[in-house]
Amino acid sequence: MFLDNLDSASKVNRSLVCVGLDPIISLIPSGDVFQFNKCIIDATKDHVCAYKPNLAFYEALGKPGLEALKNTIEYIREFASGVLIIGDAKRGDIEHSNVAYARAMFVRWGFDAVTVNAYAGMESVRPFSDYEDRGVIVLCRTSNPGSDVFQELNVQHDKISMPLYEFVARQTVQWNTNGNLALVVGANYHHQLANVRAICGDMPILIPGIGSQGGELRGAVQSGINKNGRRIIINSSRSILYASQGSDFAYKAEETAKGLKDSINLILQEAGLDWDK
Amino acid sequence: MFLDNLDSASKVNRSLVCVGLDPIISLIPSGDVFQFNKCIIDATKDHVCAYKPNLAFYEALGKPGLEALKNTIEYIREFASGVLIIGDAKRGDIEHSNVAYARAMFVRWGFDAVTVNAYAGMESVRPFSDYEDRGVIVLCRTSNPGSDVFQELNVQHDKISMPLYEFVARQTVQWNTNGNLALVVGANYHHQLANVRAICGDMPILIPGIGSQGGELRGAVQSGINKNGRRIIINSSRSILYASQGSDFAYKAEETAKGLKDSINLILQEAGLDWDK
Repeated sequence: MFLDNLDSASKVNRSLVCVGLDPIISLIPSGDVFQFNKCIIDATKDHVCAYKPNLAFYEALGKPGLEALKNTIEYIREFASGVLIIGDAKRGDIEHSNVAYARAMFVRWGFDAVTVNAYAGMESVRPFSDYEDRGVIVLCRTSNPGSDVFQELNVQHDKISMPLYEFVARQTVQWNTNGNLALVVGANYHHQLANVRAICGDMPILIPGIGSQGGELRGAVQSGINKNGRRIIINSSRSILYASQGSDFAYKAEETAKGLKDSINLILQEAGLDWDK
Repeated sequence: MFLDNLDSASKVNRSLVCVGLDPIISLIPSGDVFQFNKCIIDATKDHVCAYKPNLAFYEALGKPGLEALKNTIEYIREFASGVLIIGDAKRGDIEHSNVAYARAMFVRWGFDAVTVNAYAGMESVRPFSDYEDRGVIVLCRTSNPGSDVFQELNVQHDKISMPLYEFVARQTVQWNTNGNLALVVGANYHHQLANVRAICGDMPILIPGIGSQGGELRGAVQSGINKNGRRIIINSSRSILYASQGSDFAYKAEETAKGLKDSINLILQEAGLDWDK
């Protein structure tokens, strides 16, 4: 089950950190994506609860990119077993097409969870959540500039006004009959994180935007955690992967990932919610 | 340029028809996707302005599926040159990820146009539309049951109320600085089609949902066309591909595609907008 696996992965490594495996060839010393990912995984596997390859980067490299993704997934399964693999694919289609996407993500790639875009409604989520042992993480409030144009729009439903992202969160809670849905909320939106947490109970929240994207950690953690100080997945990609572009990149990646883990754990500890509880 | 290429493809074949190349293995006589697509292309290439492979179906088949897609694109370029290829991928990410997706779609696959999901705002469209010679088709009003949950939400912007799909259309018009954006509106929504057409001027509208999805043709054409009776792309997938599952599938596909083309042209003719004008 997705929630059990996430909780277990978090607990074993005492970590709410996810490393986004987003290979940018020009920043990789050897130019070999799989070898790079391997080094990053070896260096960070004791400090994370999840890895999150974004499929865009692999698709952009064509066949060798997809091969590198396949090898990366297999490597994590073998050498970092227990750590979750989130396919950051932001898929979202309708009917047979979406059934096919769910099959691609969960059966072909074998991801533990995927990110999805729910603009087409419940039908764009259901074929994924029908895989009851996998997680489905719905885009709610993204971390990019200009994301407010739709996500903060004031919408009216049953005579109640709210921003669209909040309505997406409320719908996702309603759709969560298999208990395997989660939400994406950017680290830079503390108010929205707190609002979504109040709506979604103990649902996991994937929080991108720490590090390169400039989100402030303390506020994100404090706003995002559930009452037990868990169920957030703090993602960092470039600030870990490319902490150094020299031959010490793996060492620097480990240092940065461990630093992020420790910083989060300190915030939890201050709130009386550390891992021994 | 996308618009010129679309107009030219429509004019040469006197057709506003697009065939969705969505392979479902269990419905394909030989079980060989590329061979099947080849037969469909040979049979329909004089009756269409575009082909639209939906990537979900190919990704669900793993490596052989992606190989079949590659071969299909090459085959269309060689034997149906001039006919557009729309990558129905519904991609939509942010920052570097979306730049990578645009590269994957336009450089790796070489599509003439792609479908995108704009939930993350302008940043989810711009990296695609930066390829000025390609088309970017933004999801506006999808044809599936339950799509109204978000798309028909009443939103408020600058003290004006409108459904979300309409706001998406208005934003897309604003973002169209390179003149290469288009919109998706389902065939079953005649009122919305007319509304979007009034908003978007001469922008192309991709109209799925004819055939298997039950959209009514006459209303869709009349509501969707621009003042010259052009700039709609009427997509049909399963009702053409699987018109027969026997050995006569290609013949039946041709008959159905030609029938759809002729039906549309009759509607145009009745409106005094036929191809000789």
